[in-house]
Amino acid sequence: MVVVMAPGATDEQVAHVVEKVESVGGEAFVSKGVVRTIIGLVGDIDSFHHLNLRTLPGVADVHRISDPYKLVSRQHHPERSTVWVGRPGREVPIGPDTFTFIAGPCAVETADQTLEAARMAASAGATLLRGGAYKPRTSPYAFQGLGVTGLKILADVGELTGLPVVTEVVDARDVDVVVEHADMLQVGTRNMANFGLLQAVGRAGKPVLLKRGMTATVEEWLMAAEYIAQRGNLDVVLCERGIRTFEPATRNTLDLSAVPVVQSTSHLPIIVDPSHAAGRMDLVVPLSRASIGAGADGVIVDVHPDPETALCDGPQALHGTALRELAQAVRRMPPLLGRAPAADRSRSG
Amino acid sequence: MVVVMAPGATDEQVAHVVEKVESVGGEAFVSKGVVRTIIGLVGDIDSFHHLNLRTLPGVADVHRISDPYKLVSRQHHPERSTVWVGRPGREVPIGPDTFTFIAGPCAVETADQTLEAARMAASAGATLLRGGAYKPRTSPYAFQGLGVTGLKILADVGELTGLPVVTEVVDARDVDVVVEHADMLQVGTRNMANFGLLQAVGRAGKPVLLKRGMTATVEEWLMAAEYIAQRGNLDVVLCERGIRTFEPATRNTLDLSAVPVVQSTSHLPIIVDPSHAAGRMDLVVPLSRASIGAGADGVIVDVHPDPETALCDGPQALHGTALRELAQAVRRMPPLLGRAPAADRSRSG
Amino acid sequence: MVVVMAPGATDEQVAHVVEKVESVGGEAFVSKGVVRTIIGLVGDIDSFHHLNLRTLPGVADVHRISDPYKLVSRQHHPERSTVWVGRPGREVPIGPDTFTFIAGPCAVETADQTLEAARMAASAGATLLRGGAYKPRTSPYAFQGLGVTGLKILADVGELTGLPVVTEVVDARDVDVVVEHADMLQVGTRNMANFGLLQAVGRAGKPVLLKRGMTATVEEWLMAAEYIAQRGNLDVVLCERGIRTFEPATRNTLDLSAVPVVQSTSHLPIIVDPSHAAGRMDLVVPLSRASIGAGADGVIVDVHPDPETALCDGPQALHGTALRELAQAVRRMPPLLGRAPAADRSRSG
Amino acid sequence: MVVVMAPGATDEQVAHVVEKVESVGGEAFVSKGVVRTIIGLVGDIDSFHHLNLRTLPGVADVHRISDPYKLVSRQHHPERSTVWVGRPGREVPIGPDTFTFIAGPCAVETADQTLEAARMAASAGATLLRGGAYKPRTSPYAFQGLGVTGLKILADVGELTGLPVVTEVVDARDVDVVVEHADMLQVGTRNMANFGLLQAVGRAGKPVLLKRGMTATVEEWLMAAEYIAQRGNLDVVLCERGIRTFEPATRNTLDLSAVPVVQSTSHLPIIVDPSHAAGRMDLVVPLSRASIGAGADGVIVDVHPDPETALCDGPQALHGTALRELAQAVRRMPPLLGRAPAADRSRSG
Repeated sequence: MVVVMAPGATDEQVAHVVEKVESVGGEAFVSKGVVRTIIGLVGDIDSFHHLNLRTLPGVADVHRISDPYKLVSRQHHPERSTVWVGRPGREVPIGPDTFTFIAGPCAVETADQTLEAARMAASAGATLLRGGAYKPRTSPYAFQGLGVTGLKILADVGELTGLPVVTEVVDARDVDVVVEHADMLQVGTRNMANFGLLQAVGRAGKPVLLKRGMTATVEEWLMAAEYIAQRGNLDVVLCERGIRTFEPATRNTLDLSAVPVVQSTSHLPIIVDPSHAAGRMDLVVPLSRASIGAGADGVIVDVHPDPETALCDGPQALHGTALRELAQAVRRMPPLLGRAPAADRSRSG
Repeated sequence: MVVVMAPGATDEQVAHVVEKVESVGGEAFVSKGVVRTIIGLVGDIDSFHHLNLRTLPGVADVHRISDPYKLVSRQHHPERSTVWVGRPGREVPIGPDTFTFIAGPCAVETADQTLEAARMAASAGATLLRGGAYKPRTSPYAFQGLGVTGLKILADVGELTGLPVVTEVVDARDVDVVVEHADMLQVGTRNMANFGLLQAVGRAGKPVLLKRGMTATVEEWLMAAEYIAQRGNLDVVLCERGIRTFEPATRNTLDLSAVPVVQSTSHLPIIVDPSHAAGRMDLVVPLSRASIGAGADGVIVDVHPDPETALCDGPQALHGTALRELAQAVRRMPPLLGRAPAADRSRSG
Repeated sequence: MVVVMAPGATDEQVAHVVEKVESVGGEAFVSKGVVRTIIGLVGDIDSFHHLNLRTLPGVADVHRISDPYKLVSRQHHPERSTVWVGRPGREVPIGPDTFTFIAGPCAVETADQTLEAARMAASAGATLLRGGAYKPRTSPYAFQGLGVTGLKILADVGELTGLPVVTEVVDARDVDVVVEHADMLQVGTRNMANFGLLQAVGRAGKPVLLKRGMTATVEEWLMAAEYIAQRGNLDVVLCERGIRTFEPATRNTLDLSAVPVVQSTSHLPIIVDPSHAAGRMDLVVPLSRASIGAGADGVIVDVHPDPETALCDGPQALHGTALRELAQAVRRMPPLLGRAPAADRSRSG
Repeated sequence: MVVVMAPGATDEQVAHVVEKVESVGGEAFVSKGVVRTIIGLVGDIDSFHHLNLRTLPGVADVHRISDPYKLVSRQHHPERSTVWVGRPGREVPIGPDTFTFIAGPCAVETADQTLEAARMAASAGATLLRGGAYKPRTSPYAFQGLGVTGLKILADVGELTGLPVVTEVVDARDVDVVVEHADMLQVGTRNMANFGLLQAVGRAGKPVLLKRGMTATVEEWLMAAEYIAQRGNLDVVLCERGIRTFEPATRNTLDLSAVPVVQSTSHLPIIVDPSHAAGRMDLVVPLSRASIGAGADGVIVDVHPDPETALCDGPQALHGTALRELAQAVRRMPPLLGRAPAADRSRSG
């Protein structure tokens, strides 16, 4: 930490800061400039936080220097991690050596629709099935998902197709029932800062897919992952899904810079959701290709056998030609960047 | 709703849209332009949503025309509402005829600190006490609040000072215990889209203070209020607290335009939190005065007897001269705009 | 300046930074932390900039500590400035002791419309006339202003009504002709970073009204003012006019926090334009009142005798009841905050 | 255009709108809903704009339906365009069939540095040389470029290496001298809405590289291109360079969705500048690969023989290993997406 004093700060005010820092066992290095004095702090950051240094007389600003997250940081864990999803013998990797393709319907509507979507996904090369049983919707009048019925459909379809299942949990009270049916728990963009839910999935004993809050900075997102990790669960996969900006042409602005930014500071895998970022089917294939180029560890997309009748986000669901184009991209592009498509690699193999 | 066809859309494609609309009992009015055809829809909007019109061939865009919220809209409830907080005989109003001043510590730390802060608040003219027992913090390593112990302190201090108490609830599982101790439940900015929590406070039978999500549009915020109202609770007060922008000089950008915007479309009262928006004590007084000017129904601010030792948000807590300036503003400015300060008005009086 | 080294930086890398700093005559104070080393720099900042310290091996980050602007800063000029506009004997002040009301048509269309608008403005208490002869428009197909003809109309109407005139200049090549006809030159939001234009108005010898770029930070805005000041013109008035955010309910989000933020770091006066920020007439009066509350030194608003026929921004122009409400607010509210309405004060009086 | 009436609008108010529309030769189709009436307009949009429909009594909102740009739209020009840069016999294409790699120093400092950077660029596969002689800088105290001296260096180096030259012009008064020395004129992000400059480069008779304003929507950007096109110059290449968001990890947020969004509505080529968006060298290669994946028609990057001594944006300049990685990506990835690297294709060949 660095404390910046105001231009006219007195020697007493500087001494007061130094004294406070030393009172909690820290060291303070004073650099007197022509205009300002700056004080470098060395010691335990958490104890410095409690000093409220910014409220002391003569203090103009306090700069934090170190990253505030620990367990998810690459600092003490320089190797990038691989997270394995699915039951023993069928596990699918998400990490630096592979490119993982996850697909499925935005919402589970019926057993038939889910099975058909899962088969579309699998034949396009997907190795994990996504599908929503609990849907957080902006309007209380919109379809909110099938709940437990939806979970059962997902589990059955996962069994039939051999695809591990990832599904969203929106309430800490539902974590137990979701864990029973799914292989990976998704925390959605609206719940990224729902700390009770983060702690609950942290104790759930299954891998977590943590979407970025649509208005969260990368640092806040990694702090949310830290909440999960702190409960003993380091099997967290991050998912970039667009941030809110002033641009109205897309629902959100996909921030692909976040992929290399995250990879440079955290060891956790990171995938991309181009469907929800764009909200437009015609952008899903180019943005998936861009995600591969950016170095993402995978993509997750919406597919639906009949988008016209979808109960949720039909306009962005892939099918037909576009899905075939995506299948081709996830097969051909990752090897250029030194990755195996996930379809070619599993722990059992 | 208005459906805009793509420039080259065929007559068959237009007819397909009309047919879909009529299949759910709606009417479709076709206007053929030189370049484009547009189709105006009349009928039940919810049924139109299920048609996924945006996925139909030849459709370029679909514009929603009506507001999506109902219970909180002024359309069927043109009079602006007053929400009364506190037990019978001591109720304090928040609404169009008064200006309500709410103050207290960001976090409850000890009984003494809370009582002293409450006395500071009351002597400055506050008629409601705020204080946090559950604190949603970005870092899992930061002080998370005293929980039930904090609730008890708040209830005791409310009793001693005669001030009704508003406090935040961060988890649906805590709603019952919070209702037991507090007069008004606050839903914080990070939980504005936590729909399970919104429904839980909607059933709690006490007034709710709903902060704006720091990246929520006004429309999404009113939809969150609609979630609460839909469970039978119309005693909702909205609280503008700043939105996330590119400007780093303040923690968030206080959006005071939201005050008249909300008042023109919703009957719910709206107050402003300048402390959390700015994150800097020196801005709290000017932004409180600005809130009064914008027509807000009240303000809520942090006060602390000793900001240097505060466990939470010390740098923004008012005391001393600044608090006296604020007390003067909330006494002298509202009457100029046709409002009584809340201190002069209660249901019992 | 503070240089933050990466966690694993070597002693050689630290020494290399120190050496570079000393090579340009600076001093470097090294603080070795448990995890990181930070280096405080003392000396001439401009010379440090040329070192590209961020590119040196082992350097993680470089924090700037001091404000980058000088002439417009309060640091060496602690008294807030007053800018006087208009020819000798009729000058109108904009500064900390008064509240200045500026009004007029968005665009000059005809002599009659401009004269009528100016009379509306004057009778509502305005002491400066605004009006656009050159209009920067997003579309090349929109009305671009009357140019020199418009300048002449403005000058004539200013003469007839006794109101000094402020008008926008959009091209450095037009500065001479605008100076000939106007009392104050406006640089619009789209040109805030047009450095050639800033330098041209800096040499023009008349006061400048510098609008904030709709996506500029406060610091960038003050740097733009510094460009003008550097050419010898310190008669700069800043104008907050809304920034671009994700909120669609208003054209831009008026950032009233910028008023006290600017006043705490710069001595220049700052006024507010609520008409262009909101783009909606119904918000102009509440946002003008909010501006007074925030401590602004004035407001500038659009008025038009017949908004239905306006060639530019008709939907936001005030007239009738709303204008009377605004007149009342600018007369009654500023005295509460220790300011005289500009109408009551001029240098000659 | 669609006019949406307020819920309580009267029949007279509806009739007034219809009458206004018909008065300028338009047709109005009225759809009466249960709650609201909507009116579809058919006819000349420009004439409708002058009606100020939004100011009429009873009107709640006006939705524009058609795109406001014409010459740059794909509507009447469905084939995507190729722009050729350089003098006859040496022209380099930018368009849908190739991938163009543009590189060079951010600022021209000396003849040696420019020549060395150009050779680095060429040997990495670049076919166009970029370099700044006029630098728009936020601070008046920063290096502003060598001006005409820089232009001459660029022209000489272009001659020596055979690379056509693209350079920025920041002031309409400099267009003539820049045209004399360069093969393509760049309009920078700060000048995207400098309409006088857009018109000047529109008349200059050479291709233009139009960077996106860092806070411009795609629509505003295409309107800026329309300004150039309207002066008779359709040789415009768009360049995405990041937009301003709340995320501090990168200087700006690269909006790669803009690539397919632009390509779906405009026939103009679009390239990407990852160096200025990120401001960090380590992100340039992954973001360049992502740009190829997104379908961009090229990239433009900063290279510098010695970033430590660069006078401008050293921290983002490529060299060494990173430049070799980029060279490999621009050679190997575009063919996967059906494009020839520009190095393999010229008009003469």
